[in-house]
Amino acid sequence: MFNKDTYVQRRQQLIADVKEGLIVLVGNEPSSMNYKDNEYHFRQDSSFLYFTGLQSPSLVLVIDTAANKTTLFGDNPSIDYIIWTGAVSSVEERAAKAGIEHVQPLSALQHVLSTAQQQKQTIHYLPPYRMDTTVYIAELLGIPYQSVKEKASLPLIKAIIKQRAVKSAEELVQIEEAVNTTAAMHAKAIQLGAPGVTEMYIAGIINGIAVSGGGNLSFPSIVTQNGQYLHNHASNAPLQAGKLLLCDAGAENRMCYAGDLTRTSPVDKTFTTKQKEIYQIVLDAQLAAIAALKPGTLFRDVHTIAAEKLVEGLIQIGLCKGDPKEAVKNDVHTLFFQCGLGHMMGLDVHDMENLGEQNVGYTDQLIKGTTFGWKSLRLGRALEEGFVVTIEPGLYFVPELMDNWYAEKKNEAFINYDKVFAYKDFGGIRIEDDFVITQNGSRLLGNPLPKTIAEIEAMKA
Amino acid sequence: MFNKDTYVQRRQQLIADVKEGLIVLVGNEPSSMNYKDNEYHFRQDSSFLYFTGLQSPSLVLVIDTAANKTTLFGDNPSIDYIIWTGAVSSVEERAAKAGIEHVQPLSALQHVLSTAQQQKQTIHYLPPYRMDTTVYIAELLGIPYQSVKEKASLPLIKAIIKQRAVKSAEELVQIEEAVNTTAAMHAKAIQLGAPGVTEMYIAGIINGIAVSGGGNLSFPSIVTQNGQYLHNHASNAPLQAGKLLLCDAGAENRMCYAGDLTRTSPVDKTFTTKQKEIYQIVLDAQLAAIAALKPGTLFRDVHTIAAEKLVEGLIQIGLCKGDPKEAVKNDVHTLFFQCGLGHMMGLDVHDMENLGEQNVGYTDQLIKGTTFGWKSLRLGRALEEGFVVTIEPGLYFVPELMDNWYAEKKNEAFINYDKVFAYKDFGGIRIEDDFVITQNGSRLLGNPLPKTIAEIEAMKA
Ligand SMILES: [Mn+2]
Ligand SMILES: [Mn+2]
Repeated sequence: MFNKDTYVQRRQQLIADVKEGLIVLVGNEPSSMNYKDNEYHFRQDSSFLYFTGLQSPSLVLVIDTAANKTTLFGDNPSIDYIIWTGAVSSVEERAAKAGIEHVQPLSALQHVLSTAQQQKQTIHYLPPYRMDTTVYIAELLGIPYQSVKEKASLPLIKAIIKQRAVKSAEELVQIEEAVNTTAAMHAKAIQLGAPGVTEMYIAGIINGIAVSGGGNLSFPSIVTQNGQYLHNHASNAPLQAGKLLLCDAGAENRMCYAGDLTRTSPVDKTFTTKQKEIYQIVLDAQLAAIAALKPGTLFRDVHTIAAEKLVEGLIQIGLCKGDPKEAVKNDVHTLFFQCGLGHMMGLDVHDMENLGEQNVGYTDQLIKGTTFGWKSLRLGRALEEGFVVTIEPGLYFVPELMDNWYAEKKNEAFINYDKVFAYKDFGGIRIEDDFVITQNGSRLLGNPLPKTIAEIEAMKA
Repeated sequence: MFNKDTYVQRRQQLIADVKEGLIVLVGNEPSSMNYKDNEYHFRQDSSFLYFTGLQSPSLVLVIDTAANKTTLFGDNPSIDYIIWTGAVSSVEERAAKAGIEHVQPLSALQHVLSTAQQQKQTIHYLPPYRMDTTVYIAELLGIPYQSVKEKASLPLIKAIIKQRAVKSAEELVQIEEAVNTTAAMHAKAIQLGAPGVTEMYIAGIINGIAVSGGGNLSFPSIVTQNGQYLHNHASNAPLQAGKLLLCDAGAENRMCYAGDLTRTSPVDKTFTTKQKEIYQIVLDAQLAAIAALKPGTLFRDVHTIAAEKLVEGLIQIGLCKGDPKEAVKNDVHTLFFQCGLGHMMGLDVHDMENLGEQNVGYTDQLIKGTTFGWKSLRLGRALEEGFVVTIEPGLYFVPELMDNWYAEKKNEAFINYDKVFAYKDFGGIRIEDDFVITQNGSRLLGNPLPKTIAEIEAMKA
């Protein structure tokens, strides 16, 4: 974890921003897999982690803004627990590492909260994303679990986003460590890709590299020869010659900062001509988007630049026609690029997604779109120095979507459907890198991972 | 999955055993990690899996025993879902694979259950181990979530244990596949163990082998140089020369059958003399326990045989004294062997632990112990042909426990505390293999994994 001063400072800033009431940050519990004690690997809540650095379960942080008093609620391990699990530091020791002066047992928490409720103090908490947390908050506050989400605190959400959106120098060091482990995963995946190897085999090897890096995966690895389906994971089917292998995967380091990269490589040793054409269009779109990154620019506009560049390329090879800008205004690009250009990244791979995409990626004046394509753009607002974002354009040839659009004769002024249909078995290509916004532009995070056609082929030679 | 006849037969047997009412098996939902859509890998509930073979989330199986009618409740994927995730088979297709004739949408479930409630039919369901399942059952039945667990059906629990406890030939094939992947994990861990390598590095590599095998981990890997703490996992601390590396890890195969092996190897290329002495005692205890396995024998008695053999060995090297049988009667072994000799294994690594250890491992006449050591013995009852069990004796030198016992002068007639204290930094040794009970004895599952001192050292040479 960072030096305790970091956490003290973050909490002081939070008090200054939230201004009144009690702030309650509930840490995560272990998650049961197929019976209670068989647990998935423990993952702390990211906001709890941001303000405490503490990675153990069953802790609650309470900040009394009026009294400027922070208390960590948690229970010390029993002697039985120590015999089974080994010496664990006391709650007092953990609190001290986070610069927290007060400690109380969990059993004291309900009384503290009900007293605050009687005094008509606001109790600020975040919307939970796990049912056990939802029920726990309901029991603490004496409210029905069905109303926990709606009573979450928007002032707290906004105050936390304000801080977490801008990454400090010490956070960037952590993120770069995660990105470097992520790059090692991708280099291995590209080299392992070959006819007959299963997606799951490659997923296993690269997942292992993430854990060996000291942390874990930042999200379930996408390792697929069906890259046109955006959320496809890995199957036990062997890779086929002539296909593309799309790998979208990332590690989180031991402090839980995320990396998130995508590379698309041929299953064979080289790309086909058809694959090269599409690949180069995606790469050019990525480079155009990267060149547009700077403070003040709306990320929504960077998304548009990438979309126009993609359509421009598709026009050049005959799949589209007309004016690229006009085409994008008519959402032509969403036949091939159904998702967003990127997202914030930090302690979550989609940073702060639990705090609401509108709150994180947009503003009170800039509202997230609701139409196909635009509704999947997680980030739209003006970039600021210290934001960390992914840039991940792609071209995805989804047969079901082509058929749907064709049946409606959708955008036929811009689309040569006969040519597009020849890509029904093409798959999908995405290229993704991670950037921090700097004073004048952006900086690539982590060691560069090869991404030109020549570089990718050289890795497989 | 198996041929549908297997599932039809299992459900018919279940109807015959439960006899009356409605049987409701709720499948698992995805589990959120750090925000709603960032999910841990999906793991189906094992009983749902046993009776359907279906590995997708958001399904409920309802068996009407009176009408002998089985219905799968689930919703078909939307076109949006297919565009993002690729073609998914319909609920009808999935039901057909499991030999289930009736399908209804999830929205119809509540009405079916409330009608049954009005008709005073018993609704049998299993005790949930995840809060989201608990709340879902509460909402379906219109009861408080706090009372869901107590209203779970003991007749259903017993009927399911009766079937799942005895493994069929086709199940044994699956278990052996999992054990073989598990053996590959262990061979790699033994070879990777060396001074300076971190536990987490090894855990990553072997976790990757489990996933590459097509399935996942059957439980979080224990990879530790502090093997005396039974539930210690893996840390980022480098392995130290002179220490022992205890690895207790397992894969589950793609059908979710578990493997579970433990090996203890030197961090260096060879064991020290002191390590060899303790290792041989544990191995002899394991061999004695294995020799005792046969139908009709109480597993509790096999545990006692292993405990006596361990104490016998400790007497020979001077850590204990007196008569081994007398010593075990006085629980002397629990200073060194605090846990149980083994457990059932199948679709869960601790098979059916969610159905209650008393129900699974004991009988109405044979009650699980409550004292230190005995309370950790998950299995006590008479073995039957087709049971799959682990045999995993160990010797664990836990400084905190030695100090506790010594302060109470506990069992000082049997323990040479001065000698025992010389093992405070020794660590722990466990050796674990998986067996099926046969007509006359037992059979090792999977390819044999080296376990003699000479074999282990040869693997590191
Ligand atoms: Mn991404
Ligand atoms: Mn075991």
